[in-house]
Amino acid sequence: MQKKRIVIAGGGFGGVFAAQQLQKLSGDQYQIELISENNYFVFQPLLPEVASGTINVQDAVSPLRLLLPKVKVRQAEVVDVDTEKKQLIVVQGRKRVLIPIAYDHLILATGQVTNLESFHGFEQHSLTMKNLSDAHQLRNHIIQCLELADVTEDEVIKKRMLTFVVAGGGFSGVETIGEMVEMIQRTLRFYPNINKDDVECIMVQSGARILPELPEKLSQYAREKLEKRGVEILLHEGVKSASATTLTLGSGKKLNTSTIVCTIGNGPSPFIRKIDLPQQHGKICVNRHLQVEGQSNIWSLGDTALVPLKDQPTERTDFAPPTAQFTVREASQLAKNIHALESGKAMTAFTFTPRGMLASLGNYSGVASMFGINMSGLFAWLLWRSFYIALLPGFATRLRVGLNWFYDYFLPRTIVQVQQASGSGCKYMHFSAGELVFDQNQLLDGLHIVVSGKLEMRIAATDDQQEFVKQIGAGDHWGEKILENQVATTGVVTALEDSLVLVMDKTDFGRLKQALPSFRDYFDQINPERYSSAIKKTDINN
Amino acid sequence: MQKKRIVIAGGGFGGVFAAQQLQKLSGDQYQIELISENNYFVFQPLLPEVASGTINVQDAVSPLRLLLPKVKVRQAEVVDVDTEKKQLIVVQGRKRVLIPIAYDHLILATGQVTNLESFHGFEQHSLTMKNLSDAHQLRNHIIQCLELADVTEDEVIKKRMLTFVVAGGGFSGVETIGEMVEMIQRTLRFYPNINKDDVECIMVQSGARILPELPEKLSQYAREKLEKRGVEILLHEGVKSASATTLTLGSGKKLNTSTIVCTIGNGPSPFIRKIDLPQQHGKICVNRHLQVEGQSNIWSLGDTALVPLKDQPTERTDFAPPTAQFTVREASQLAKNIHALESGKAMTAFTFTPRGMLASLGNYSGVASMFGINMSGLFAWLLWRSFYIALLPGFATRLRVGLNWFYDYFLPRTIVQVQQASGSGCKYMHFSAGELVFDQNQLLDGLHIVVSGKLEMRIAATDDQQEFVKQIGAGDHWGEKILENQVATTGVVTALEDSLVLVMDKTDFGRLKQALPSFRDYFDQINPERYSSAIKKTDINN
Repeated sequence: MQKKRIVIAGGGFGGVFAAQQLQKLSGDQYQIELISENNYFVFQPLLPEVASGTINVQDAVSPLRLLLPKVKVRQAEVVDVDTEKKQLIVVQGRKRVLIPIAYDHLILATGQVTNLESFHGFEQHSLTMKNLSDAHQLRNHIIQCLELADVTEDEVIKKRMLTFVVAGGGFSGVETIGEMVEMIQRTLRFYPNINKDDVECIMVQSGARILPELPEKLSQYAREKLEKRGVEILLHEGVKSASATTLTLGSGKKLNTSTIVCTIGNGPSPFIRKIDLPQQHGKICVNRHLQVEGQSNIWSLGDTALVPLKDQPTERTDFAPPTAQFTVREASQLAKNIHALESGKAMTAFTFTPRGMLASLGNYSGVASMFGINMSGLFAWLLWRSFYIALLPGFATRLRVGLNWFYDYFLPRTIVQVQQASGSGCKYMHFSAGELVFDQNQLLDGLHIVVSGKLEMRIAATDDQQEFVKQIGAGDHWGEKILENQVATTGVVTALEDSLVLVMDKTDFGRLKQALPSFRDYFDQINPERYSSAIKKTDINN
Repeated sequence: MQKKRIVIAGGGFGGVFAAQQLQKLSGDQYQIELISENNYFVFQPLLPEVASGTINVQDAVSPLRLLLPKVKVRQAEVVDVDTEKKQLIVVQGRKRVLIPIAYDHLILATGQVTNLESFHGFEQHSLTMKNLSDAHQLRNHIIQCLELADVTEDEVIKKRMLTFVVAGGGFSGVETIGEMVEMIQRTLRFYPNINKDDVECIMVQSGARILPELPEKLSQYAREKLEKRGVEILLHEGVKSASATTLTLGSGKKLNTSTIVCTIGNGPSPFIRKIDLPQQHGKICVNRHLQVEGQSNIWSLGDTALVPLKDQPTERTDFAPPTAQFTVREASQLAKNIHALESGKAMTAFTFTPRGMLASLGNYSGVASMFGINMSGLFAWLLWRSFYIALLPGFATRLRVGLNWFYDYFLPRTIVQVQQASGSGCKYMHFSAGELVFDQNQLLDGLHIVVSGKLEMRIAATDDQQEFVKQIGAGDHWGEKILENQVATTGVVTALEDSLVLVMDKTDFGRLKQALPSFRDYFDQINPERYSSAIKKTDINN
């Protein structure tokens, strides 16, 4: 008889722990296959430490093949489910071949993605803390801000570069700002032109206190600790919109910043949105056995699912919170239930009361609430670190993380900015009304096309030229001639309204123009006189 | 009196060591500013070890601000020189502002870039080993090949994924293939479906032996060592062209591979090509004092310059080789000469006889030629490691690299693939005559536009449709309807001639279509019947 096939979509806490538990319970009884876009498991609570450089990227992750030696691990992207044929459809390889994977049981654990739709401009101008590359990017971004702040002679730019904002005061937000402050303060000695007082770190929290999941006393302690270290905490304050230079708060207040870390706003992944299974608030509805409603062989858990803790759930607290702690427990119950079903035994409803909660504030202090006891300071921090080291998979990783934490105590923090692939492609930029889009004497990085809003292009009068002013709106574009002639900008573009602009990278623009006749013809036929007064074809050296 | 300003363009061996020497010689006498695109110095000889995961990325690099505490470090891109105004022009910040930097002395040390123009398709389909992101990319690429080879059921793809080629048998090529073989062999235990014999590592060297800079005996030893470890070395063989699936050698032989590491082909950077200073073979001509010909206050060294070792150089050996060892010595002489000139003393001609050469072969063996003595094996390898540890800047880095090498001996190699930003933008793909461009049932990743060559699109006959065959050439494109309808391909595209195709990422295509009216109109007006027989609008699930 052929083994039953259990297919798991997702390599996070839910997927990995479910696979481990199934293996443990049943040995070789099932053929287990796990599909993940990355070939590693990310230990998400360590991401802020990766961003701050306390630990190495590879110490926050573990190869899936190492964690799950007997499970078939497939690095692929999940695109659909065919419940009738019992197939999960994935896309694999650089040629993006579609492959159907047959299952007897399917576990959906693909997780949530950041959804910034409700915050205008956040998609383009904020950073998130969801995965490894986010942590990497935040780190490089902070270093870039410090580098520029150290050499610029423009005080407005300097202030902007040295204002760091975190949106959200939950666990992720608090740990992120704690690590950011520590990192910035420890690296300032490399930047002779930046004073400690020039740096502003701000946390924006919509509720009445930070860390609302913890007892009020610990929230208070965490707040005092962070404030003492220079973090400004804005309570009862939301975020509204962002541009490359400005964050507008719910109250209307504007902050001159280019660093916004967004730890709020979660939503379903495109895959979950696409599949035809019962959903609520972007999560898959499951019963207390963790089976998807109406299905006996499709399961879900973690932040992918809405997991009821009661038979008749009504309130928000009647559902499991989407934390790693709960997810790991759900994975265990889910594995037991699949095994029970296959063995003809009764399934058990999921239930769990958490034992404690921990948060690090950076700089060797933390807060904890364990078994009803509240702790704070160094002891809570040590507890937090030991707790996570114990949870880390594999002796090698534990040793490395432990040693790196130890080195970190006495070695200088590095400020190496390992740049990622250059930002080619078509990127959106959002500009607030009144904002300067670009100034004179810059090199443009791409073709600018207005998607919505209104902007003004203005070139000051010179000896042989009158002042030139033009309003531009949706579908208008600028930069094509400047890019072609490789000259610097001579005019100024300002946003008259909140505007969205698509910037097509200059290399891509050149390549597309060369390859696609219709695109080339369009730009060639543009009256060269159209911009005659807008561009002085001066070489940048003169 | 104002201090003389010495501006250094480039943060590699030449720039960093010149700045250090100037500081050492003169204390605070000069105002020294160093311009670099990265805020760190890369220890290039360690790049193969970064690619293989023996050491961490940050252990191969040092922050410039840490190395040069009294030098003003500016992270910017060098774009031009104005020798009359004595200004170096740089672009700085995300807004790409042009900034002129005044100098009294200018040192040009921007280095060379990989130039793959003479190898058809290499620009698009080969990897290089020039900088940190190259090492990172090679590492991720190898892991991706292993991941795919482990799960694919197509033997041709499996073979392709497991064939690894290095072009060039110099220091960089030998160290790269040595580390690659070690990495692959040590990680194979995670891939149950790959046998050791499935893997092929091939080195292509145009000369009669590898490591031609070393004595013949050591070349022979290195060759035997590598061959014993499974590397196939092709001597008297060149590379001709590359596609996503095939490497064509000089002899016409074709290899089924998607991993080509190119360690050959160097050329001047766009900056050097642009500036108006005497050049030969893409290098700046300097005199024996390291002054650029015809200039008294512009200097160059390293692989940026053609440095004569004799007064009347004629042969290739009359010029300094572009190695780190020579560059460091040149930097020292250059610093002394600037200081001599400013102090009214006589300058000294550059001269240097190297003391030895070292190369690592991976797997704890190496070759060395020091003070006329040839060494090989473990001792040479230890010498190599100690030598580099000693050269590493900073105690912290030395300790970390040393410890990581030590761990590496007894800990399993990690296979985490930290993915970089997704490949958006417009990318070129090169296809050889006869090559399958895509098959049925794939999801396209972008709009495909033919730049040159000829291809054939073919859709097999079905019950309700005749066979469809069409030839396409420069300016033609495909994929726009498939992308719009989000369906899988139903046809097959094959290259009839060697062809170059520009692929515009599907996200970028969608964004540009939405933003730019002329682009949208063009694609909307395409007769929807044009592809009627080429696309079956079937959902991928049916």
